[in-house]
Amino acid sequence: MAPRYAPSLRSRLAPLLLLLQIGFIVIYAVYIEVLTHLLSLYYLLSFAEFQDVNVMVILGFGFLGTFLVRYGYSATGFNLLVAVMATQWAVILNGIESWYYRGKIRADLRSLVVAEMCAASALISIGALLGKTNPVHLVLIALLEVSGFVLNQWLLQTLLKVPAANSIMLLHIFGAFFGLALTWILFRKGSLQPFEKEKFDRQAGLFSMMASGIVQLEIQVQTLNYFNSVLVDHRSPWRKLGAVCSTYLALAVSAVTAAAVSMLSSPKGKLNPVHMQSFILAGGVAVGVSMSAVHQPWEAMTIGFTAAVLSTIVSRYLKTHMLLAFECHDTSALLSTHGLPGLLGWLAHLLLQIKACDDPTVAVRFAVFHICSLLITISLSLSMGIITGLLLKWNFWRPPQDNKCFDDQAFWEVGNQNFVFLKTNVELNIILSLHRKDQIS
Amino acid sequence: MAPRYAPSLRSRLAPLLLLLQIGFIVIYAVYIEVLTHLLSLYYLLSFAEFQDVNVMVILGFGFLGTFLVRYGYSATGFNLLVAVMATQWAVILNGIESWYYRGKIRADLRSLVVAEMCAASALISIGALLGKTNPVHLVLIALLEVSGFVLNQWLLQTLLKVPAANSIMLLHIFGAFFGLALTWILFRKGSLQPFEKEKFDRQAGLFSMMASGIVQLEIQVQTLNYFNSVLVDHRSPWRKLGAVCSTYLALAVSAVTAAAVSMLSSPKGKLNPVHMQSFILAGGVAVGVSMSAVHQPWEAMTIGFTAAVLSTIVSRYLKTHMLLAFECHDTSALLSTHGLPGLLGWLAHLLLQIKACDDPTVAVRFAVFHICSLLITISLSLSMGIITGLLLKWNFWRPPQDNKCFDDQAFWEVGNQNFVFLKTNVELNIILSLHRKDQIS
Amino acid sequence: MAPRYAPSLRSRLAPLLLLLQIGFIVIYAVYIEVLTHLLSLYYLLSFAEFQDVNVMVILGFGFLGTFLVRYGYSATGFNLLVAVMATQWAVILNGIESWYYRGKIRADLRSLVVAEMCAASALISIGALLGKTNPVHLVLIALLEVSGFVLNQWLLQTLLKVPAANSIMLLHIFGAFFGLALTWILFRKGSLQPFEKEKFDRQAGLFSMMASGIVQLEIQVQTLNYFNSVLVDHRSPWRKLGAVCSTYLALAVSAVTAAAVSMLSSPKGKLNPVHMQSFILAGGVAVGVSMSAVHQPWEAMTIGFTAAVLSTIVSRYLKTHMLLAFECHDTSALLSTHGLPGLLGWLAHLLLQIKACDDPTVAVRFAVFHICSLLITISLSLSMGIITGLLLKWNFWRPPQDNKCFDDQAFWEVGNQNFVFLKTNVELNIILSLHRKDQIS
Repeated sequence: MAPRYAPSLRSRLAPLLLLLQIGFIVIYAVYIEVLTHLLSLYYLLSFAEFQDVNVMVILGFGFLGTFLVRYGYSATGFNLLVAVMATQWAVILNGIESWYYRGKIRADLRSLVVAEMCAASALISIGALLGKTNPVHLVLIALLEVSGFVLNQWLLQTLLKVPAANSIMLLHIFGAFFGLALTWILFRKGSLQPFEKEKFDRQAGLFSMMASGIVQLEIQVQTLNYFNSVLVDHRSPWRKLGAVCSTYLALAVSAVTAAAVSMLSSPKGKLNPVHMQSFILAGGVAVGVSMSAVHQPWEAMTIGFTAAVLSTIVSRYLKTHMLLAFECHDTSALLSTHGLPGLLGWLAHLLLQIKACDDPTVAVRFAVFHICSLLITISLSLSMGIITGLLLKWNFWRPPQDNKCFDDQAFWEVGNQNFVFLKTNVELNIILSLHRKDQIS
Repeated sequence: MAPRYAPSLRSRLAPLLLLLQIGFIVIYAVYIEVLTHLLSLYYLLSFAEFQDVNVMVILGFGFLGTFLVRYGYSATGFNLLVAVMATQWAVILNGIESWYYRGKIRADLRSLVVAEMCAASALISIGALLGKTNPVHLVLIALLEVSGFVLNQWLLQTLLKVPAANSIMLLHIFGAFFGLALTWILFRKGSLQPFEKEKFDRQAGLFSMMASGIVQLEIQVQTLNYFNSVLVDHRSPWRKLGAVCSTYLALAVSAVTAAAVSMLSSPKGKLNPVHMQSFILAGGVAVGVSMSAVHQPWEAMTIGFTAAVLSTIVSRYLKTHMLLAFECHDTSALLSTHGLPGLLGWLAHLLLQIKACDDPTVAVRFAVFHICSLLITISLSLSMGIITGLLLKWNFWRPPQDNKCFDDQAFWEVGNQNFVFLKTNVELNIILSLHRKDQIS
Repeated sequence: MAPRYAPSLRSRLAPLLLLLQIGFIVIYAVYIEVLTHLLSLYYLLSFAEFQDVNVMVILGFGFLGTFLVRYGYSATGFNLLVAVMATQWAVILNGIESWYYRGKIRADLRSLVVAEMCAASALISIGALLGKTNPVHLVLIALLEVSGFVLNQWLLQTLLKVPAANSIMLLHIFGAFFGLALTWILFRKGSLQPFEKEKFDRQAGLFSMMASGIVQLEIQVQTLNYFNSVLVDHRSPWRKLGAVCSTYLALAVSAVTAAAVSMLSSPKGKLNPVHMQSFILAGGVAVGVSMSAVHQPWEAMTIGFTAAVLSTIVSRYLKTHMLLAFECHDTSALLSTHGLPGLLGWLAHLLLQIKACDDPTVAVRFAVFHICSLLITISLSLSMGIITGLLLKWNFWRPPQDNKCFDDQAFWEVGNQNFVFLKTNVELNIILSLHRKDQIS
């Protein structure tokens, strides 16, 4: 059958991982300085935040991958691998400034929280490429994207004085456009037809997907809730409680709206589970990006409502169009789940902030800065995505063949017998139906 | 085949959801006033409670539905929909009193916690109707039941001066009797035979249910733990820690007892996973209702023990009887999981409180009030259940036909191919066996 | 077919559970005294810890069992049963000293946390025996092992003045060696061939295992994180935050390293999901045991790296060897997941502590005490394991026959139809292939 695939990956992935890991250990040994604090409410909050972000990054994104049933091991396992590599890398990058001034990188629990949020931007992009890449690609993407995202944050905070909490919430926009640029560069002719394995899974896997699919939906709801509440400024902690309320209400409204719009726009008037899941998320993303300007529950609810409507309609009518016109094969609906809701949240932030300003000069000034920060983020993410894509096109990394896409067997020791058994069954059906025709004729 | 089903639901569910949702946003915009607080231990507790109740309501009840394997999407998806609608509605209803006096509804994180607990009473009732209703029914039930429950709480707190924490824990009793009244009114002749799909699932799904079934058991144990600890009075927070201990011990004892009694009462001496799950819950429900009177671990343990024994025996011998004699088809064992343990907890509360009173006058007075609160709760829940049931009998809501019960395909875009494939396989068997007979003869 | 199995277990398990449970209730009623505290940061931490340890013990170990697909109910259900019995028993045993001096056992939320960690040592051992024992065995093992572990802790704390946090983290070593001694004593000739059901599962179950397998991996990562942070001394709570950081980094490094080494050592250059899961855990176990001496992130990272390498290599080359040479059939890779990483952590603790000592006399003194504590732990765990094993060999407990091993049907009312259906399918294939040959010839 196909050329033996695995040995080549062994000579690429294992050395890469070992080298990077040993490098990280050395850097941590030489440069990291751990801060110790007295116990206080502030640090108790840090601990709770770390749990929340960790659940989001490891469990939330991990579950997102399980909808690809024949690719479940890879989606979840590589997600974990990428998350931990990107987090370690982000701790180092975020500490460069402190290293420049003091010669040491200061780290505490909060650094890990921020680093995991940077890693989340990489996990968002990777969602669009799942199944069409190998883990070497994914690790490289993660490292480059985290570097780009940290650079973007540094630019925004230094040039435009954007507060840290606002600049980091642009991770949804950065991740989405980085991912779209990547899929555009890495587009394969094979994507024009649905992948054999991707299609097969949709049919055979639905049965076992039932539980996991919805479970993941619930967990997303759970975790996004906390994700948004983490980075609100600690000097005004009651804002954090407000962020939790707002996110909950936005998610609630977008769940209801997504159900209604999904049913209205379906030709048969039925709900679509994959859509439901994305559109509920959309509400959370939009409210997350605009969080620091949301003060009333109804504002969060309106944002959630708009995000769900927008994202449902775009996804119904634009996905196929994008595949054909822009040559983007987008495995996990990046644009409608993270990209557009992120832009919507950015717009809502702008409008709410202008509404709250009494002085028109301040409002215009804010608008200019806000538009600049979006432009910088989008252009940086697109250009970094294109550069990363060009690097990955290099055949040295041995991309999977089209017929090995969306297949766990390329990377994991999963029993072949299983697959053989299924195949036998399918053959059986064919043979029998032929046989029956023989009997009839 | 069957008449085209979906379009009719599109013209019912989507407008209902959109209207209600826009209505809620308008009410929130006009009347809700958000309270802001300084950070304190008290508000840190609020945050932890919100996480816990949220996990219980969204994940816990969501998982409860997955045992219906061909109905997993609906059970979990509709649970989410109903939970978020009921919560938004309950925030409004709970604030009516404050609106009456101040013209504004005051809301903070704590209001969401209380609202989610009101929503839980609706989710309990809905468990009994899963598979035999459509989402329009479920949303209507949720809104009416939450209204009834808030009215009941108001009556108990105003007329009988029942503390808020005690009156809200009656949600198990209210939910169970509301649900039973509903199933009685909505009884269908078709329920006398087991539903085709309900039966089919039990066989075909067990394989894939294994993981999810038990996972849900564990999560129930986890979450109920916290559910009970939430509403203990904040002026004495060490009581909260006591509530966690008591709930853990009651759940532990009822797990052990349920295993023993389930094995003793089984004709083959085996354990039944569905029973195990319900009866472990029973212990938690019973101790939750009597929580404010439990002071010693052994009291909680004895309540857990009794609840598990009672609930196991009732479930083994009464379920079929109820179906035939009272014409109640109870999908998720409402009576033995929530109803009877709730009553047991009420009784335990009465006995423990009387035992703790030195003065017989006080004890008698407490007993009279306690009995009145039970009578009010039961009569209100039954009458609201009957009214709701009569409203739902209206064919305008287009109830699912008997052969579409317990089937995700009625509401969700799940690939038909999957079902066809299975059918082909079954047909194959039949054809082959006929074929073999031909060969032999 | 086989002799009727269930009735005999009914006459053993149900009375045992009921007797023990009623006994526990009586002891709790007579001797337990609940402590009440004012709310403080300290007790808020207790509450968070209780949640974390509970998630670890109930969910984490519960999920560990689901990789045995035809044994999922038993693995998870019996895990719950054993955990709650062992916890109740450990609360009593840990209170004996306080009972001796004051006549009452003092209990608060913290006692439950410590008791659950003692129960964890029993759950580790039980992992090695899953599938080859019945629940009566498991309950007896749990009670005896918890007794042994509490005795071990008492010896270490009294004779060698080992701090409580260090002595309890030896639970991984105690559990692993107790479990190995047990498997050695309970070795069956049948184990030399792979069990029929154990093998069958690996094939048929992979499909549905995908989701759950990886989910469990993620949850392990999540929970171990907290497990290690619980027992760091409360007088220096910033250490707790350090423990969380260290555990996270150790797990991250061991995930990356395990992936690399698993790929390097595989003949086909592929990843193995079961290995990945165990080796990630290995890093957490190693850093947990040495936690109190780890002060810098790179120390934790190096320990995680070494643990993953060691454990991957041992597991690839030693498992079959152990089965043949030492006659140990180790269902859940006890030695490479808990035993060796535990020893490695012990060694790392020794080296780090010696490095930190300025005075060589203190260093030598510490080394002697540290080596003694290991020797006591290992000899006590091995001898308790052998005694327990000999007790369990008694046929009174009716061990499962070889052909009933790894089969849920022996203990649970799971529909037989399911199995019959599968069988029919397999027969179908055979018949059809024979049939085809007939036609051809």
